[in-house]
Amino acid sequence: MILTVTPNAALDVTYRVARLEQGGSTRVTAVDERAGGEGVNVSRVLQGLGVDTAVSGFAGGATGRAVRTDLIVADLPDAMVGIRAETRRTVAVVDEGAGTTSVLLEPGPEVSATEWAELVVRFTGLVRSAKAVVLSGSLPPGLPVDAYATLVRIGRAHDRPVVLDTDGEPLLAALSERPTLVKPDAGELLAATGETDPRAAISALRAAGAQSVVASMGEGGLIAVAPGEAWQAGPPSRVAGRATGAGDAAVAALAAGLAVGTPWPRMVRRAVALSAASAAVPLAGSFDAELYGRLCRRVVPRPFAT
Amino acid sequence: MILTVTPNAALDVTYRVARLEQGGSTRVTAVDERAGGEGVNVSRVLQGLGVDTAVSGFAGGATGRAVRTDLIVADLPDAMVGIRAETRRTVAVVDEGAGTTSVLLEPGPEVSATEWAELVVRFTGLVRSAKAVVLSGSLPPGLPVDAYATLVRIGRAHDRPVVLDTDGEPLLAALSERPTLVKPDAGELLAATGETDPRAAISALRAAGAQSVVASMGEGGLIAVAPGEAWQAGPPSRVAGRATGAGDAAVAALAAGLAVGTPWPRMVRRAVALSAASAAVPLAGSFDAELYGRLCRRVVPRPFAT
Repeated sequence: MILTVTPNAALDVTYRVARLEQGGSTRVTAVDERAGGEGVNVSRVLQGLGVDTAVSGFAGGATGRAVRTDLIVADLPDAMVGIRAETRRTVAVVDEGAGTTSVLLEPGPEVSATEWAELVVRFTGLVRSAKAVVLSGSLPPGLPVDAYATLVRIGRAHDRPVVLDTDGEPLLAALSERPTLVKPDAGELLAATGETDPRAAISALRAAGAQSVVASMGEGGLIAVAPGEAWQAGPPSRVAGRATGAGDAAVAALAAGLAVGTPWPRMVRRAVALSAASAAVPLAGSFDAELYGRLCRRVVPRPFAT
Repeated sequence: MILTVTPNAALDVTYRVARLEQGGSTRVTAVDERAGGEGVNVSRVLQGLGVDTAVSGFAGGATGRAVRTDLIVADLPDAMVGIRAETRRTVAVVDEGAGTTSVLLEPGPEVSATEWAELVVRFTGLVRSAKAVVLSGSLPPGLPVDAYATLVRIGRAHDRPVVLDTDGEPLLAALSERPTLVKPDAGELLAATGETDPRAAISALRAAGAQSVVASMGEGGLIAVAPGEAWQAGPPSRVAGRATGAGDAAVAALAAGLAVGTPWPRMVRRAVALSAASAAVPLAGSFDAELYGRLCRRVVPRPFAT
């Protein structure tokens, strides 16, 4: 089982509209609601790969109940910790006239010290039966900035691979606990290290404690720097689609690989292929399985000179 | 007590954003949720006037629970009928950068025949203790187009004044039941009658059964045509503010007047003043009481030649 933790999980709401009237009233033609947040999407992708997974994080209020109900619908094992405050929503407005999607992100719920302590206890219990751990997304208000550092420490103390996909202070505070893998994108690399050169930025993250770094460079594909080896790969041709969720798909492929000790070139190949196959479908957490299979045969990782 | 019925009640959500990124992601800086829908706003205004009121309509699911909780918070007596489907939300995005508010309206919940029958029974019971009845807004899916006609018939059979504030087919289908007052705006007048001249349109609605018609003409104020008399009045000076909720405030003033037999000129004066005092504050259902008092002394209804 691969355990994903999404402290700032959300109820992802999608509104379809014919044409958004800015400053006016617009009828929503269809409403869709599903459990969301980066780790939840990673678990969805893992499930699509046939890999056992469990979903942890915080869920509270009516939106929290809706998130948990949707986990049942999706057959994703629920290891959420209940909180008093209301889980946030995100509202994606799909404007079919303009061909754009605008996303509104509610602020996260205030999590109490007791609720955070409960997650630590729950996490410690689950880590024993996890083959790998994925920690994803932002921290909600109330959590200490070293919340991820604590979870990385527990995961590493149990000798489990820990993938950390976050940014800013929570990322920097966790590096000294030696996460197995961090997955910044180009903007996060720059923000975390102040280095404009990806090589230098990746080196800085590894010097600070990250054992391996997989940087997603958008059109440039992935750069993976691990102990003693480094690889780079991109999709064979430009894949149309949305970037949201592509990063979560890459994390899913990497976590699945780390869980069973897959060699790096194969792991990178799968991460690139799964990322592109996920960008090709509208729903985060889903992927085009046929495209994934096809791309797996065509993505060729090359050594990356560090 | 004045009974308001809002079959398509909503949870009105307000998102404040610094600047909406169309096609991108925008952080919501503040979230506000309250019970909404036209009749609910009428009840809020009545409460602000010190007039006893009760709120009926349909409420279901988690949003329905949130609506009912907010009625408790607002100290508004809850006479809602529970339904299986989920009460709709409206999402108002207040763009502080652009100075605009964009509203997204979810489709209403599907109401079953049994649930509709339950509302009819509940309404019939409440009508006895009501001094007036207000029927407001659109009909949710599943209700017969003559739903308002049925409620008007029951109210009139008990000899209660019935104010009907809706449009389209539900309005036209209810006219033959002789509602005491209908309150179309200029667009609704035209849509309901095909007449571009307000005089002709109002006559057509009265010929079809409406006992009195109060038409809200935007900047032009109100035109009230009742049996044997007709009045017109507007605010003494242009009042800045939003139109949403101004109509509900006018309905509240008219229902409060009909409940106690206030003479028409005074009722029209109060409706115009309350409408402007409501437009001057941001929250629907609230009004600027000081401005209301001031405008009441300054609005002067003049006879309207029909």
